Amino acid sequence: MKDLIIATGNKGKFQEFEYLFETYSPAKNFAENLIFAPDIAKLIAMPGGRQVEETGKTYAENAMLKARAWAEKSGLPCLADDSGLEVEALDGRPGIFSARVAEGQEVKWILNELKNIEKLEDRRAKFAASLALCVPDEFILITEGFCNGVIIKEARGSGGFGYDPVFVPDGYEKTFAELDSKIKNSISHRTNAFLNLIQKVKG
Amino acid sequence: MKDLIIATGNKGKFQEFEYLFETYSPAKNFAENLIFAPDIAKLIAMPGGRQVEETGKTYAENAMLKARAWAEKSGLPCLADDSGLEVEALDGRPGIFSARVAEGQEVKWILNELKNIEKLEDRRAKFAASLALCVPDEFILITEGFCNGVIIKEARGSGGFGYDPVFVPDGYEKTFAELDSKIKNSISHRTNAFLNLIQKVKG
Repeated sequence: MKDLIIATGNKGKFQEFEYLFETYSPAKNFAENLIFAPDIAKLIAMPGGRQVEETGKTYAENAMLKARAWAEKSGLPCLADDSGLEVEALDGRPGIFSARVAEGQEVKWILNELKNIEKLEDRRAKFAASLALCVPDEFILITEGFCNGVIIKEARGSGGFGYDPVFVPDGYEKTFAELDSKIKNSISHRTNAFLNLIQKVKG
Repeated sequence: MKDLIIATGNKGKFQEFEYLFETYSPAKNFAENLIFAPDIAKLIAMPGGRQVEETGKTYAENAMLKARAWAEKSGLPCLADDSGLEVEALDGRPGIFSARVAEGQEVKWILNELKNIEKLEDRRAKFAASLALCVPDEFILITEGFCNGVIIKEARGSGGFGYDPVFVPDGYEKTFAELDSKIKNSISHRTNAFLNLIQKVKG
């Protein structure tokens, strides 16, 4: 496998994948082969990363839909992710709708949803991610990863994206947005899914 | 991997998988570890094989939905398939609806759909199959396979199921329903998907 399309329109997410490949991939310098989807979109007549319709009912389905759409159009191997935040007190919401429920206003939205819940122990949540690697005419491989924590009561930190400023992972006191990105990228749901993937592809 | 659930309610399909594992699996005698889904359904409170709702828009999605549902309920590795017949003159129909478009009346239905198409070369079709192997907490692996051929004008043979009596694969003169099952099972769409899967799992 030489080139690999990362099927996202989110540059922050693309950079996370660059870091993950640099840090964990057994293939040396593989990160150099990553292609940011929007950079190739015009060449293969694909609209931007988010434009593949996310009609699935699970992260795994959505990740697969995105990976396959890009792989089929380009003929290249393609890696896509789908992820979300599942809040216990909200019966698992926003889940697969995490990126769509309040685009750009995620923090405000979730703090409002939980405004009547006082105790931190009642504000438990987990981030979940599915990764799908589609190698055309060969296979699609899907893995999952999780990261447990709590939703605190006020936003803190400026790193990451989405719900990161209000999510404190178990075992830490800082939010995902406060933690050094290297620390976040050693414990995150996406990292766990990535490690599961690497392990299987290596074999 | 010890036990493996085959997520189908169709005994004929289960037996095809037994044959495929006996013939192609690198793990000796692995076919003995296969579990016919209905045999375990009551133990794990799952309804029959076909009862997992096939809400996907592709074979791959439906195979994944079935494999994952059974794997999650049972905690065991699970293999599911979804397949269909794509007729060129019908713009790829019946496709993912192949098993639902005329249950038990597939042959009658397809002959009627194509009744005005005289030349065999205009009656080209392909069988497509996706297999999904879900190993709980590890990965989901999806592969595809195809078999090209033509839809003849009258049913012939009593083997197989579904559209087999009217499908003649390229390079043969007999229908899937007339061919010795060993021959069918060396060239079929399901076999090709299975070989792709085995190759990846072996590695």
